[in-house]
Amino acid sequence: MKKSAIIDGNEACALIAYKLSEVIAIYPITPSSNMGELADQWMSEGHKNLWGTIPQVIEMQSEAGAAGTVHGALAAGALSTTFTASQGLLLMIPNMYKIAGEMMPTVFHVAARSLATSGLSIFGDHSDVMSTRHTGMAMLASNSVQEAHDMALIAHLAALRSSIPFLHFFDGFRTSHEVSKINIIPDDIINQLVNFEDIKRHRQQALTPDNPRISGVAMNPDVYFQARERANPVYQELPDVVAQIMQDFAKLTQRSYAPMEYYGDASAQHIIVIMGSGADTVRETIDYLNSQNNEKFGVVSIHLFRPFSIKHLLAVIPTTVKHIAVLDRTKEPGSTGEPLYQDVLTAFVEGIQLKIWNRPLPRITGGRYGLSSKEFTPSMIKSIYDHLKTNDGKIHFTIGINDDVSHSSLAFDQKYNIEAHDNFRGIFWGLGADGTVSANKNSIKIIGEETNNWAQGYFVYDSKKSGSKTTSHLRFGPRPIRSAYLIQKANFIACHQFQFLEKYNCLENVGEGAIFLLNAPFEKDNVWEQIPKNVQENIVKYKLRLFCIDAKKVARAQGMGSIINTIMQTCFFAISGILPKPEAIAKIKKSIEKSFGKKGQAIIDKNFQAVDATLQNLYEIEYPSLFNGPPNAELIIPEDAPDFIHAFTKQLILDKGDAIPVSLLPLYGQYPTGTTK
Amino acid sequence: MKKSAIIDGNEACALIAYKLSEVIAIYPITPSSNMGELADQWMSEGHKNLWGTIPQVIEMQSEAGAAGTVHGALAAGALSTTFTASQGLLLMIPNMYKIAGEMMPTVFHVAARSLATSGLSIFGDHSDVMSTRHTGMAMLASNSVQEAHDMALIAHLAALRSSIPFLHFFDGFRTSHEVSKINIIPDDIINQLVNFEDIKRHRQQALTPDNPRISGVAMNPDVYFQARERANPVYQELPDVVAQIMQDFAKLTQRSYAPMEYYGDASAQHIIVIMGSGADTVRETIDYLNSQNNEKFGVVSIHLFRPFSIKHLLAVIPTTVKHIAVLDRTKEPGSTGEPLYQDVLTAFVEGIQLKIWNRPLPRITGGRYGLSSKEFTPSMIKSIYDHLKTNDGKIHFTIGINDDVSHSSLAFDQKYNIEAHDNFRGIFWGLGADGTVSANKNSIKIIGEETNNWAQGYFVYDSKKSGSKTTSHLRFGPRPIRSAYLIQKANFIACHQFQFLEKYNCLENVGEGAIFLLNAPFEKDNVWEQIPKNVQENIVKYKLRLFCIDAKKVARAQGMGSIINTIMQTCFFAISGILPKPEAIAKIKKSIEKSFGKKGQAIIDKNFQAVDATLQNLYEIEYPSLFNGPPNAELIIPEDAPDFIHAFTKQLILDKGDAIPVSLLPLYGQYPTGTTK
Repeated sequence: MKKSAIIDGNEACALIAYKLSEVIAIYPITPSSNMGELADQWMSEGHKNLWGTIPQVIEMQSEAGAAGTVHGALAAGALSTTFTASQGLLLMIPNMYKIAGEMMPTVFHVAARSLATSGLSIFGDHSDVMSTRHTGMAMLASNSVQEAHDMALIAHLAALRSSIPFLHFFDGFRTSHEVSKINIIPDDIINQLVNFEDIKRHRQQALTPDNPRISGVAMNPDVYFQARERANPVYQELPDVVAQIMQDFAKLTQRSYAPMEYYGDASAQHIIVIMGSGADTVRETIDYLNSQNNEKFGVVSIHLFRPFSIKHLLAVIPTTVKHIAVLDRTKEPGSTGEPLYQDVLTAFVEGIQLKIWNRPLPRITGGRYGLSSKEFTPSMIKSIYDHLKTNDGKIHFTIGINDDVSHSSLAFDQKYNIEAHDNFRGIFWGLGADGTVSANKNSIKIIGEETNNWAQGYFVYDSKKSGSKTTSHLRFGPRPIRSAYLIQKANFIACHQFQFLEKYNCLENVGEGAIFLLNAPFEKDNVWEQIPKNVQENIVKYKLRLFCIDAKKVARAQGMGSIINTIMQTCFFAISGILPKPEAIAKIKKSIEKSFGKKGQAIIDKNFQAVDATLQNLYEIEYPSLFNGPPNAELIIPEDAPDFIHAFTKQLILDKGDAIPVSLLPLYGQYPTGTTK
Repeated sequence: MKKSAIIDGNEACALIAYKLSEVIAIYPITPSSNMGELADQWMSEGHKNLWGTIPQVIEMQSEAGAAGTVHGALAAGALSTTFTASQGLLLMIPNMYKIAGEMMPTVFHVAARSLATSGLSIFGDHSDVMSTRHTGMAMLASNSVQEAHDMALIAHLAALRSSIPFLHFFDGFRTSHEVSKINIIPDDIINQLVNFEDIKRHRQQALTPDNPRISGVAMNPDVYFQARERANPVYQELPDVVAQIMQDFAKLTQRSYAPMEYYGDASAQHIIVIMGSGADTVRETIDYLNSQNNEKFGVVSIHLFRPFSIKHLLAVIPTTVKHIAVLDRTKEPGSTGEPLYQDVLTAFVEGIQLKIWNRPLPRITGGRYGLSSKEFTPSMIKSIYDHLKTNDGKIHFTIGINDDVSHSSLAFDQKYNIEAHDNFRGIFWGLGADGTVSANKNSIKIIGEETNNWAQGYFVYDSKKSGSKTTSHLRFGPRPIRSAYLIQKANFIACHQFQFLEKYNCLENVGEGAIFLLNAPFEKDNVWEQIPKNVQENIVKYKLRLFCIDAKKVARAQGMGSIINTIMQTCFFAISGILPKPEAIAKIKKSIEKSFGKKGQAIIDKNFQAVDATLQNLYEIEYPSLFNGPPNAELIIPEDAPDFIHAFTKQLILDKGDAIPVSLLPLYGQYPTGTTK
């Protein structure tokens, strides 16, 4: 295994889980699916775990069966794991209580996802994992792709050390599907960290005929209560155990973690507490605000959520703190507050009683954010710090929506942007299944692996999947990328489907002077007049450099049918400026050799010719300040359509759903039918 | 329906649920089973609901199916309910999120039960309902059999009024299986309380071809978050809605409830907050301590747990409060505290911020009690108030066990007893399935229905069920009985199986001067010498009145084979003194006529003769102070048995499991095999 890799959070996590398991029970569910699918594939390819055996990957009839299989495998002394999310995790709850009650070391890896409430959603938040916080499993959160890899290992090590099962989770899609350049932990380091005494202890607990014991007894009121209190010391010591494992890990990898980590000004008065991918964005925002605006902000990111360590939390918070916003990526209707909020509040009250916090109780407020992959941006974070400073009286708030019903939401500036100017920030518009996403993943691999750039790719699909549009958000830059949100001001925009110009505002997030690559099925001389008028206006307004190619024509001429992804990828390499053009083209050709090597020289040559033909057919347009394009296509909604269609459905189609206020959502979750008329 | 009835909590609850439902989906699970089974039986007997139709009772393949059926029935506009507990409730969680998200008015009635962790247990605590507190369902707790009836109605009314589904729960076994004399709500009162506009609104939400709408849509990040915030005002208003319904209910029934209720001294400094059957015991204990010991204690019992109303809680707590113990009947390993504790703590901190609590933050501690039907007694409650007064530094504690591992437990005096002296308190020892329990239930019915006495019966079974011993705990008295714990000092003890004297300490909880009824297969003159020596000693020490009968001989002589329950019941009526003897015998005969009327006069006569024969064969023994009985039978455990058998298993067999300290419980939940050797 190479020391660095360009992979997504699911793969980063699955690599570790596979290495440390003998029995892997799966029932793939979005967004955790490819953890299970990769494990299955690796098994069939004969990949081996740390001990040189091939794990048995078993697909069950449901997540309940998968959890039961893990329970059984553990009882037999095997090392076992599973992957899941959302409703799948809910089906595992009964077994989670059993596995925790019987102190069995396993890790459930979860790509955290929303739960189906009034509507189903495949996207990410913490509702699923929060619904299992009382099972007795320890819970460890990762905030990035790198951490999905590192914390996976830490979770397995801590489970083996303590015999307490772990739920390791990271944000569905935002982390599970983000492609990132990460450092891979080599086997020899894993070998150094795994304590074989821990594994031996687990083996000795196995139920075997040689050493018969009874497990899963029926208990009466006489001793059940005592049994529930038996493991208290193990839970009490676990935060220190995890901290120690993190320190051992840091010595060998130079990547430092702690159960709870503080970042920001050492004498901060205003602090955010958060868990998951948003934590990195808060750090990025703090760096900006503290340096640009002379603020003194701080953030605590929680890795170890269960057992929740009051001691570790209070130890990292500056005593100067006055006001804390605790952010939860979940919603629990009817509660006094979401779980992390309640934990932090409890920590301070108890800390004062225990005299480990010798200052007044800070003001603590609770915010909900990012439900179902709702964006969480620096602008929202700035708004939360503003709220902390002005102390506007709201104890509970939401951020990222317009709540015109219960007025929970904080306002934020849609245009506020702090993205690093020295990063490449490209947005690519493609059709679902047209190859745009695969080509972009390939580009990230090339640039991430072959240069010193850090790389990040995030791909926005509609949950309706293929056939709809996709946007790829690619960042490259000299520093690790902490921006866990969509690109807000791109310096490169590619539109692979000309007809999108009519339907979508592809230039909504473009920055001044950016490059605009357009696949236009026209001759160079009459491209401009084909571009819709509002797009022309934006091109002129933002002083874009406009590059066009008739990719389909090139593809047909090269005998590639209608497959344009290599052509558009070549254009990107040629004009993006990330690499000098000759070097870029060389790397693309090298990548083609790698991809098609097995298929013979003829195929390679054909692709090489396509690259050359692309370069010959790609041209920059010196456009006039003349707005002579066709009028903007309006989405036609019949005048007599119900108001709801105009106010709601139309906005969804126009990609403006984020702005829909709460009041427009149907209280009972029921929507009108026949709206396609 | 009569105005009062002698029924258990399950039946009390099911009566209401049946009346207000059209579709009842069941998958019976202990201790909720007979709610579903009764509904099924009532359907087959043609009982009608409030609107004169027979509800459809459907048994599904699992609790997941039952919850799905309820969801579907609600979507079709029907009124629907279900009953469950423990793991069954866990299987309903996915549907609970859906039903709450779609704002569908239903009530899930739960006889709250432990979850299987290191061991399975069928007994009662709040672990199951607490595992669903984030689903968005409202949660209403009942503390007694009467309340299981009343709150069931209030829950249905509030669900219909608000469209928020309710989970109504009460303590498994302690309330579900306690037989009690309660007031039944007549149909005309239910009719007055049900608002038909509420039902109409629910019907209008039904998905029908006449009024097509889409429900259960797939949502993207654009609007899911907004949808989750849409119902906030409904949750915010719900506590007041429930309070109003409780007031309407009180006007018609003269039984007053509130979402949160305070009881005790108006200027209390030391307060317990609790939910479930323990609340009544705390009230009973407070009355004793405040009047006998001049204490100023108070208790808040929580009915409406979700939405948790900070306003209602703080409004009932005296401003004099200094120290609060919040008691949770559940355990969440690794949490900062159990749920009710965290809610109360959050309520005070927010109350101070909101200026609805204008005093310093009281000291708040959290205690776990009563897991898996562990007894919760006045002595334990006194110990908690002592803890509140001495402020011993423990923020979290347990009560009812000896925790010698993490030292969480408060000590309590096993002998402390406050039971009302004017109550009849009888303990009956029988064999599982020997008819003792049925006879006792019949006795409660007779005394409860035919006299002005309040009545309570609680039956302790081993979870191994028939074949093992049962003890019946019967209380009768002039006031409603609030003692939700086993009888601690009986004034009547019956032993229906002579051989128990060797195995069990049947007189452990006897009070001085009590009556001891013994089924002894001997002649009057040589009974005494057959009684084991230690029992003889106790009889003399406690100055018991000893009555004996050879019940099997009487039964055989009357041609009743080995069925002794009518005979022992007759003895009880004859000597207990609850009713004058002639009246008691008349009532037993009347009861026989009622029970066997359909079987013809011959059977009735035979039973009448058995009663008369019983009276002729029952005799009181003027025992000597002579301890000439056989030696106490010792439980023989081989010397060479493992230490664990001596220290643990032997204690379970001897009924001394409650005293087993935490340290003896196996950490991994594994027990030695082959112990029957």
